[in-house]
Amino acid sequence: MTDRKPFQRLSREVLVENAFHRYCMDRYVQKDGSEGVYYYVDMPGSCACIPVFDDGSTVLVHQHRYLLGGDFWEFPTGGMKVGDDPLMVAMKELREEAGFCGSDWTPLGHFAPYKGVSNEICHYWIARGLSESQQELELSEQLTVHRMPMAEARRRLIDQECADGQSLSGLVLLDRWLAKGNQL
Amino acid sequence: MTDRKPFQRLSREVLVENAFHRYCMDRYVQKDGSEGVYYYVDMPGSCACIPVFDDGSTVLVHQHRYLLGGDFWEFPTGGMKVGDDPLMVAMKELREEAGFCGSDWTPLGHFAPYKGVSNEICHYWIARGLSESQQELELSEQLTVHRMPMAEARRRLIDQECADGQSLSGLVLLDRWLAKGNQL
Repeated sequence: MTDRKPFQRLSREVLVENAFHRYCMDRYVQKDGSEGVYYYVDMPGSCACIPVFDDGSTVLVHQHRYLLGGDFWEFPTGGMKVGDDPLMVAMKELREEAGFCGSDWTPLGHFAPYKGVSNEICHYWIARGLSESQQELELSEQLTVHRMPMAEARRRLIDQECADGQSLSGLVLLDRWLAKGNQL
Repeated sequence: MTDRKPFQRLSREVLVENAFHRYCMDRYVQKDGSEGVYYYVDMPGSCACIPVFDDGSTVLVHQHRYLLGGDFWEFPTGGMKVGDDPLMVAMKELREEAGFCGSDWTPLGHFAPYKGVSNEICHYWIARGLSESQQELELSEQLTVHRMPMAEARRRLIDQECADGQSLSGLVLLDRWLAKGNQL
């Protein structure tokens, strides 16, 4: 066991593959050199944006979430597939989910939303230069689109009884960007 | 199909069961009445705390995350098992991960960290009345414990190149609580 470094992968098995992600089981080296098993979601990533209109207003979606059995206020977000370019996915989601095209995209950075069970990285942008487009929802999506002042959007995201963690993290990335002296 | 409501579950199959969660496949009714398939992680929940000492300092863990291949600054967090009481899990994690006992726990609320693929709800507390205890790490855990001023902890959580989304969301819940006139 002497050549095995802690947390080194020994093998990977894809247990379930579907249209959105793969569910995998890795055998790996634990910190004492013994072998452990790790079950997880293998996901290329996700992309989200904070739309900002010239008047400072933004757009939230109010989306039904099957797994939680309720509706959530969220920034428009979508999942990547293997080989996708993150910015292209963010643009596509803003168009298909919220019905807007953006011409000016500013990266805000990224975070790991669910570090213990998924390798997903969620990428965030500010989307400006917005114009109306055609919403195209999936059969699995039920949502309404709401334009409102940014302060009201913050309140809806933060004050809902059970918040969407990815949108809360997006707000933190926005505030980090604003704290560097940038302005909307 | 007339009696089927959108997003009604038709069946659930547990595809993989392990010590931490279940990976499931549901058949459900999509919004046009047709049948869809949903693959997801079924997880009783997670619990985290923001430790606060009498001098206003806090504790972060710097933890290796196998799935992301790197180290993350995080608040102490742990997963629940079926039947667990959230507060008991938060107390246990603070003790086992960070090596502190807290006597005064203030709930900050909860959020859904990964709404599209997991039904997990993450519960957050402020932990005060802290005293040193005995750290007990798992073989899968590699982390160091760091006490620092709250402002420095915010900086480490927010400024890391890839942040831990659950800790960012915890900061938002803390700020929501502070904005109501509460004080640390």
